[in-house]
Amino acid sequence: MSADGGPRRLLIRDLAQLATPAGRGAPLRGVELGRVDVLEDAFLLCDDGVVAGVGRMHDLEPLAGDVDELDGRGLCAVPGLVDCHTHACFAGDRVEEFALRASGATYEELHASGGGIMSTVRATRAAGGEELVRAVRRHGRWMLRAGTTTFEAKSGYGLDLETELASLQAIREGGGVATWLGAHALPPEFDDADAYLDFALREVLPRAAELAEAADVFVERGAFDVAQARRYLEACRGAGLALRLHGDQFTEQGAVELAIELGARSVDHLEATGDRGVSQLADSAVVGVLLPASALFLGRPMPPARALVAAGAAVALATDFNPGSAFCESLPLVCSLAATQLQLSPAEALTACTVNAAHVLGRADRLGRLAQGYAADVVLLNAPDWRYLAYHLGGDVVSQVVVAGVPVELP
Amino acid sequence: MSADGGPRRLLIRDLAQLATPAGRGAPLRGVELGRVDVLEDAFLLCDDGVVAGVGRMHDLEPLAGDVDELDGRGLCAVPGLVDCHTHACFAGDRVEEFALRASGATYEELHASGGGIMSTVRATRAAGGEELVRAVRRHGRWMLRAGTTTFEAKSGYGLDLETELASLQAIREGGGVATWLGAHALPPEFDDADAYLDFALREVLPRAAELAEAADVFVERGAFDVAQARRYLEACRGAGLALRLHGDQFTEQGAVELAIELGARSVDHLEATGDRGVSQLADSAVVGVLLPASALFLGRPMPPARALVAAGAAVALATDFNPGSAFCESLPLVCSLAATQLQLSPAEALTACTVNAAHVLGRADRLGRLAQGYAADVVLLNAPDWRYLAYHLGGDVVSQVVVAGVPVELP
Repeated sequence: MSADGGPRRLLIRDLAQLATPAGRGAPLRGVELGRVDVLEDAFLLCDDGVVAGVGRMHDLEPLAGDVDELDGRGLCAVPGLVDCHTHACFAGDRVEEFALRASGATYEELHASGGGIMSTVRATRAAGGEELVRAVRRHGRWMLRAGTTTFEAKSGYGLDLETELASLQAIREGGGVATWLGAHALPPEFDDADAYLDFALREVLPRAAELAEAADVFVERGAFDVAQARRYLEACRGAGLALRLHGDQFTEQGAVELAIELGARSVDHLEATGDRGVSQLADSAVVGVLLPASALFLGRPMPPARALVAAGAAVALATDFNPGSAFCESLPLVCSLAATQLQLSPAEALTACTVNAAHVLGRADRLGRLAQGYAADVVLLNAPDWRYLAYHLGGDVVSQVVVAGVPVELP
Repeated sequence: MSADGGPRRLLIRDLAQLATPAGRGAPLRGVELGRVDVLEDAFLLCDDGVVAGVGRMHDLEPLAGDVDELDGRGLCAVPGLVDCHTHACFAGDRVEEFALRASGATYEELHASGGGIMSTVRATRAAGGEELVRAVRRHGRWMLRAGTTTFEAKSGYGLDLETELASLQAIREGGGVATWLGAHALPPEFDDADAYLDFALREVLPRAAELAEAADVFVERGAFDVAQARRYLEACRGAGLALRLHGDQFTEQGAVELAIELGARSVDHLEATGDRGVSQLADSAVVGVLLPASALFLGRPMPPARALVAAGAAVALATDFNPGSAFCESLPLVCSLAATQLQLSPAEALTACTVNAAHVLGRADRLGRLAQGYAADVVLLNAPDWRYLAYHLGGDVVSQVVVAGVPVELP
């Protein structure tokens, strides 16, 4: 609220450019994915947390009443970035495993050294709820520094009742959108995936469903197979959760077909997806979430992004931020990877980590565009052209972030 | 100087870790490349711009007289990073070309759209000397933000007398180490490379040699061949300049042999270097400068880094910062790429962008180590383990930078 008690207004003026995905609705696909509206010498007016108007400076009419102003000279505005796939709730790190892998250690050697998901499960179980809240908040500040104003985060490093619930609670308290990744890996107490799922669906799901918006499962050799994933996801759907899948990261196990069959919001990773999966996804309403930072981090092949877009699939981009396979919270870097490794244009990349990512989180009606009525979440880029978001590889491109119409102090 | 007129002292205390390349001399190679000394709970004492001592906190003796203190809790210290290969003196950008390439444009289409080196030559020639100084200073601030305390920069976007000299002058005024890249490309006024070299060596070299420390040449199909490079470099050596070469970026043209024959300090790029070049380089004193950000930016193969190191070659890492093929000033990102794409350990990466890079710039006697008598250039990482330098992909890892014993304000 402003000093006079009215709604708070903010005018961002004299922007070099204002760029926002064009097209209507979500998810965007095909040529619509690559259409971005660019206004030069632009303004953005925020009123009570919402975008009240955008336009060219010479069309700006005098504003009555109190308005805070932000000088946008030399800056470009894009929508606050939306990270729709992270594992931001964890304790500890995996820097030792990272160094061993860089030195050529095999998967088995990493495991023998105490690495892998289970090392993070141990650290996360050992952390209390308060430590997890602090971790999510710290990671959220890192993301904000990189222009992410909305992030999803998954549980999945607890895999027991107490830690899964503490993780989902920490994600909510830390400002994230919570996804229950109850089927991330088989915890050490169980030697049978079905027995673990019996437990998870009976004991954890009823309470997880009160904290999370979606459920997720890792469909992969050594994790969960399609039959197990179907049972898990159907139960989660029955409890009111939206559905997501980790699929085709290393091998095709049928995750794409299952995602389509169950009407999932997304299937994520797709590094191993072949032609058949590409065309199935293109004919569906499921969004393919691409995670190039993870492929880079592990030195693995990139997902077939260009083929997916060309076939008409809806794609989103996310970081996959996690301690083991993508210690990277930067969506600008992901946009650079999209342009250099995935053959996506900067415009396609922007749409993929704004409108389409918001759709994956069920928020495309209010996030992902700089247009009237949308949340006034804005990233101001230190650049003469908004495409520096992808062009300035590893650069410190984020100058300022506005959340719900309020400029925030960057950490 | 301190208030009392004595030399200024700074104590960085309670560091989580202090990490510095082990071994003596430079360049380091083989197992020495991967040896880093790590002190936990450490201090670093700077006196009059130089490292006066490092050690464990419990070994710190009381200091008499005035000493400024810097709280290192939660931070790790590594040597100020040295970027030994950049093209930081240019005007304009190439974001349009970047976007076209991301969308699948061919080299010919990029050229037809006005892209390529010549577009930067046009913009750089059109800029005045003052604009070039501002550009170098801006880029130097970006590098400092990313932990680079010493950077080399090349001319080569002028290719006429006035702009080459203005570029070298701007690099010096902007705080860089100047390299004359007179043989970067054939400027439009010439249709014959030998005729251009006649001009460059007769008109530009005598004055460039007063401003630059080294000379560099782009040996490649469509640029300069080995005979032309030999003529250029021999003349430059005669004028007192150290020698560098861009070699094997796209094709092997004999740059490695020429570098060895002429006793060059380095041969840079090496993405196309085969087994023979690897073993030749390993048997020589020439440093192979690896530029993985450039390979990533162009979607090209990575250089054979692991093979070079295994064979015993001395390697350095640099950004190749330039507007066309590597708009990236971040050595931390380069270290991440080294660990994920080049199979170099974080320790090898650190040595490669400190001690070995300093050697390429003829400064290994005073730069690249946190050891007594070396320049007190220090990067404080926001991390519990120094290897986050490589592990935290795209992260905002640099918390504070100290240059010559003085903490500097990060932009």
